[in-house]
Amino acid sequence: MKVLDHGEVVLLDVMGSDQAIGDAARVSYHPASTKEKNSLEGLLRYLLRHKHTSPFEMVEFKFYLKMPIYVARQWIRHRTANVNEMSGRYSILPEEFHVPELDELCFQSDSNKQGSGGPLPADLAKRVQSEIKDISEGAFDYYNLLVKPDDPDEPGYGMSKEMSRIVLPLNTYTEMVWKIDLHNLFHFLKLRTDSHAQRQIRVFADAIEDMVAASCPMAWAAWRDYSKHAYDASRMEKRILADCVRRLQSMSKELNMGDVVGDIILQNKGQMSDREIREFLAVFTAE
Amino acid sequence: MKVLDHGEVVLLDVMGSDQAIGDAARVSYHPASTKEKNSLEGLLRYLLRHKHTSPFEMVEFKFYLKMPIYVARQWIRHRTANVNEMSGRYSILPEEFHVPELDELCFQSDSNKQGSGGPLPADLAKRVQSEIKDISEGAFDYYNLLVKPDDPDEPGYGMSKEMSRIVLPLNTYTEMVWKIDLHNLFHFLKLRTDSHAQRQIRVFADAIEDMVAASCPMAWAAWRDYSKHAYDASRMEKRILADCVRRLQSMSKELNMGDVVGDIILQNKGQMSDREIREFLAVFTAE
Amino acid sequence: MKVLDHGEVVLLDVMGSDQAIGDAARVSYHPASTKEKNSLEGLLRYLLRHKHTSPFEMVEFKFYLKMPIYVARQWIRHRTANVNEMSGRYSILPEEFHVPELDELCFQSDSNKQGSGGPLPADLAKRVQSEIKDISEGAFDYYNLLVKPDDPDEPGYGMSKEMSRIVLPLNTYTEMVWKIDLHNLFHFLKLRTDSHAQRQIRVFADAIEDMVAASCPMAWAAWRDYSKHAYDASRMEKRILADCVRRLQSMSKELNMGDVVGDIILQNKGQMSDREIREFLAVFTAE
Amino acid sequence: MKVLDHGEVVLLDVMGSDQAIGDAARVSYHPASTKEKNSLEGLLRYLLRHKHTSPFEMVEFKFYLKMPIYVARQWIRHRTANVNEMSGRYSILPEEFHVPELDELCFQSDSNKQGSGGPLPADLAKRVQSEIKDISEGAFDYYNLLVKPDDPDEPGYGMSKEMSRIVLPLNTYTEMVWKIDLHNLFHFLKLRTDSHAQRQIRVFADAIEDMVAASCPMAWAAWRDYSKHAYDASRMEKRILADCVRRLQSMSKELNMGDVVGDIILQNKGQMSDREIREFLAVFTAE
Repeated sequence: MKVLDHGEVVLLDVMGSDQAIGDAARVSYHPASTKEKNSLEGLLRYLLRHKHTSPFEMVEFKFYLKMPIYVARQWIRHRTANVNEMSGRYSILPEEFHVPELDELCFQSDSNKQGSGGPLPADLAKRVQSEIKDISEGAFDYYNLLVKPDDPDEPGYGMSKEMSRIVLPLNTYTEMVWKIDLHNLFHFLKLRTDSHAQRQIRVFADAIEDMVAASCPMAWAAWRDYSKHAYDASRMEKRILADCVRRLQSMSKELNMGDVVGDIILQNKGQMSDREIREFLAVFTAE
Repeated sequence: MKVLDHGEVVLLDVMGSDQAIGDAARVSYHPASTKEKNSLEGLLRYLLRHKHTSPFEMVEFKFYLKMPIYVARQWIRHRTANVNEMSGRYSILPEEFHVPELDELCFQSDSNKQGSGGPLPADLAKRVQSEIKDISEGAFDYYNLLVKPDDPDEPGYGMSKEMSRIVLPLNTYTEMVWKIDLHNLFHFLKLRTDSHAQRQIRVFADAIEDMVAASCPMAWAAWRDYSKHAYDASRMEKRILADCVRRLQSMSKELNMGDVVGDIILQNKGQMSDREIREFLAVFTAE
Repeated sequence: MKVLDHGEVVLLDVMGSDQAIGDAARVSYHPASTKEKNSLEGLLRYLLRHKHTSPFEMVEFKFYLKMPIYVARQWIRHRTANVNEMSGRYSILPEEFHVPELDELCFQSDSNKQGSGGPLPADLAKRVQSEIKDISEGAFDYYNLLVKPDDPDEPGYGMSKEMSRIVLPLNTYTEMVWKIDLHNLFHFLKLRTDSHAQRQIRVFADAIEDMVAASCPMAWAAWRDYSKHAYDASRMEKRILADCVRRLQSMSKELNMGDVVGDIILQNKGQMSDREIREFLAVFTAE
Repeated sequence: MKVLDHGEVVLLDVMGSDQAIGDAARVSYHPASTKEKNSLEGLLRYLLRHKHTSPFEMVEFKFYLKMPIYVARQWIRHRTANVNEMSGRYSILPEEFHVPELDELCFQSDSNKQGSGGPLPADLAKRVQSEIKDISEGAFDYYNLLVKPDDPDEPGYGMSKEMSRIVLPLNTYTEMVWKIDLHNLFHFLKLRTDSHAQRQIRVFADAIEDMVAASCPMAWAAWRDYSKHAYDASRMEKRILADCVRRLQSMSKELNMGDVVGDIILQNKGQMSDREIREFLAVFTAE
């Protein structure tokens, strides 16, 4: 799958599936009974909800990735993965670099010290895009002069690859094979599909999330409910929320409005089990 | 520090402190300015709140631990630590085993498949306690017969230590040196000080939490607010909570009751910063 | 595959193969050219010889394992694997324990503080075997009394599973799903198929080595040549060996015996490439 | 300590020492007896020789590092360390880049696909050095134009830091705090002080090795003997070497030359213990 101007995400191999997660949780290699099969979705949701994450380590994904070096430098910080990256000491790097689309060129955000704000005006964006292309081409021209052997037709300095590459810009593309288990991949996706992640890594993470959704649909849906779109309320926020819910309960009682909180739960509960609802009530209501 | 009947937790060494976490976050080795020192607590709270956990890896704790093998088997599942455990292949194991106190002997829980329920009646508990002592002593007597060399005064079989030990019970004590960084220790403490953890590992975790609190008081307090006592609301729960808060807002408005939600926030906000309150309102209220 | 009296090793799944290792090393997802296929074996040997181990992390094995707890405690020390083990807090443990065969019952080794020496005499071994069976059965009988609910036909104490299990012996069987990449599996196999490993873990490791050999025959053969049966000579041993080879060279020259060292190399070189031989000569001979 | 033109290695903190390694191996927190203290060096040598590496994980080093990005990209591949790196999304990067000294500018090696060969001629080297400086300054000038806010005196585009940095070259300096245990640091040093490592990472590794030698002199000396300067002989090389030693033995016997191998051992044995010599003889000689 193509990402950015020259980037790529290819799913090379998958070991396991939703079923493998359930089998690992039951420490079983016998075919599951019909009853167990029916309840696989419930089991996966239960596991993720209670952060019993080790069975999710039993599924493994392997990708081929092509991305700019400044993205790869963020990527590689996730240490619980296996990586084979192409080496600029060993190979002459192909002339491929990331030139942002116009809408990728934004002002510095005012509110977020590490984020982008609104887009540059169209004419400035065009100029910057063209200048980034020029400066990258200039760097590659000089790299090629350094690294190419002396040749009557195309003379070069024949300098070592490992030193020649140091002039290349951070938008140069690199390639890697990357393998990671589903638990750690979910952690990666939570951080890198987040709106605070840099847009250029987010597009890679989004592509990977689609592949995970296709391979392990039950685990992925559960992860969205219990992790990606969950909200980690601090001790203080939890108290505030519980007080609000309790006040709403008591006010609706006084006003004879019926079970307002219960109605709100019914409207929003989605796939919540009866047990989940009981546990929610125990935390947030007066009962 | 003594734990259980023969257990022990000794803090051997600590590298770093609250200050070291802040220095790592700022990637700095220069003495912090006064302004930076004043804001250290705020920085640590900000980092933990946004799950920027890598600076917490820069503090390292080393413990001597003595615990029953059935506790050690849970302990060792935390893989991101360094361990040196005494070896029953190399040493004759001392005759020390965990005999539970009477109040540690409980019925199986009805509601929790892996937990303990109410205590056994006193007379049954006394009998079980005495029987556990007897069966453990019997196992050690036989172990000693197997492992001790033949001797006129105290004859033994002289069997290899590595095979003799296989008859010893899971309540036999073992000893280890255990080293872990603060980020991973917080994760361990969250799981093992939880009310669902087995009581006999919880007492060790509680002892360790006290030592962490003494060594890194700011980081520990922040961890309690943003992790240990936090509540991870699912996508569905978040919607329910937001609907409840909004309904409470609209009801109090209609009834001219003033800013009820704002009042609740003020009563519970503790050390929440203005920014935290703004972000809370953005998620849970109509504004 | 059956191991010990009740143990088991089942290969549940494999991701990748010899080919996948080569593809990762070349950071390629294109079908290899014929030339590349022919040289796959050479590539894998080159990688292992130079300890370029990351491509071997791209193959992943998953096993179901059933083993005594005293073996599992050694097993679990290998932290770079994924594990789901059955829980004695959650399930009543089946009455299965390891009773050693007669030839597994040995005296303590004199020379190796942590090893076994010669076998016990047959009559003593028979007695010990029978006693280990009795003491294990006794422990399980008491465990069952503790853990079983009170029942008219088979009365029990109904004590919590998590506390009842503490009387069970270390030879009780446990079960797990275990996943590990080939690089780390090779490391495990090097340590645990070694003659210094306890025999009861070695039989499991041997069974796993056979499965690895069947799945990745080229990688496995290279690993045997460059790791399992290699010899790590210390700085001092290297100097001694080089001096011996050089002396042998000079003596055979003086005595007009021809290229004795060269002949020895020819007789033993097996699959060594010309480059390997050149590099060997550079280290150990006068040239 | 200064490294390269703008690089730096500062030892921020150490937890433990030679003594701590011995204490962990003995799983002890009691002060060692005099006898144990005397034999600490022997214990550390024994541990490293037999690859009992876990006690070496009990010592932890923390460094501040400043290095070019192309070095940092190699560095960060060592995953068993803790890292906090400065962020080009968050901070404007200072204008510091690596301009190689003349003798760092070499031709591509003929024999080593990823290495450097002989130095460039002086005049070419001078030209390249000057051109690298110019192209790096040019990239930084453009970066500063992109990233600086519009200002009457020094106009800039005010583009986001995260996108502006993509034009910077790989020789730009970055800074990090890096923490690692001694076992993993030894592994790092073995790879990165090796003659095949790129010179620009080697100078950092050499600086670190000096600091390790000062902090843990016994462990460091043992590591040099049993790892850094050891030779990992393949199965085939081991057979060749053993045949050579045996042939030398038999030839010297036939010629009545005395114990030639024994003499060579005596000349080279250094700190080898009697046990080591016995084990060496068992592997490589006829006895």
